[in-house]
Amino acid sequence: MISNETIQTIISRKSVRQFLSNPVPDAFVSAMLECARFAPSGLNNQPWRFVVVDDKEIQTQLSELTHYSDILLSAPLSISVFLDTSASYHREKDIAAIGAGIQNILLSAHSLGLGAVWLGEILKNKEKVSAVLDVPNSFELMAVIAIGYSDGSSKRTDRKELKEFVWKNRFSKI
Amino acid sequence: MISNETIQTIISRKSVRQFLSNPVPDAFVSAMLECARFAPSGLNNQPWRFVVVDDKEIQTQLSELTHYSDILLSAPLSISVFLDTSASYHREKDIAAIGAGIQNILLSAHSLGLGAVWLGEILKNKEKVSAVLDVPNSFELMAVIAIGYSDGSSKRTDRKELKEFVWKNRFSKI
Repeated sequence: MISNETIQTIISRKSVRQFLSNPVPDAFVSAMLECARFAPSGLNNQPWRFVVVDDKEIQTQLSELTHYSDILLSAPLSISVFLDTSASYHREKDIAAIGAGIQNILLSAHSLGLGAVWLGEILKNKEKVSAVLDVPNSFELMAVIAIGYSDGSSKRTDRKELKEFVWKNRFSKI
Repeated sequence: MISNETIQTIISRKSVRQFLSNPVPDAFVSAMLECARFAPSGLNNQPWRFVVVDDKEIQTQLSELTHYSDILLSAPLSISVFLDTSASYHREKDIAAIGAGIQNILLSAHSLGLGAVWLGEILKNKEKVSAVLDVPNSFELMAVIAIGYSDGSSKRTDRKELKEFVWKNRFSKI
């Protein structure tokens, strides 16, 4: 397959759920946020909002709101991702744009030698996360991203074959 | 800022709305779809479905369903992106995952020297797009991506400053 460094980053990225204790350098945090900033959004409304957590006590409070506490307790950094409903113009398009922003964070993390995982299960407690981070009422939690240096134990999950989800010109197999 | 080829791709990507007539090589289409394939999704449910269009007549039919007909008429290729609602487990998480998959396509396109734009306005006619592409009833249109070689006229749109959408530990400015 044709490839380059960007494509290699995209294809080799995997979810990392256990981390070393080393902190994430500030310059890496800035680079990841800068990448999030340049995601596309409908009408360029940029509806995403981020709370970066490196405080151990706050990270522990977040960890108590998910079944996957170990992941957040192990991660030196997390980024909670919100949709600002007061900046929303079309719910589905805004959520998809936020997914693009999250992917920019995951890819830039991986390209910098960091590991990360997109946590969704914690959304069952989204109001409690909002309370811990003291965000405005208009902020709705979309994901929490746990970030750090991988302990090396993560494995990539399988994917469907292209022919299972791609069709050419009309709904007929490629 | 700390950078590398992946971060550079992410930050320099912009929407391209006018294309040269040169076709997109098949190997590039395969690489973009392979990148979409490796996006993350909740429970790894991979709810995305894609219809790749390079047939001029079908592309013209799609162009009639958007205010931005010129973009699709100019683009040698489009990828219509669907959520398969029969594979969905959580609507918001699935839509965000599809946003990540779309971003993988946009970034790989840019890394290969192609231009692309994420079209959302056409969702107003999502049922008609589904009819043109003859997809199953469970497929819900999320976006159409127009792809080709840029004619060089596109400009990058502005973004908010980080301090306008990022906070540290709690809702207090970084």
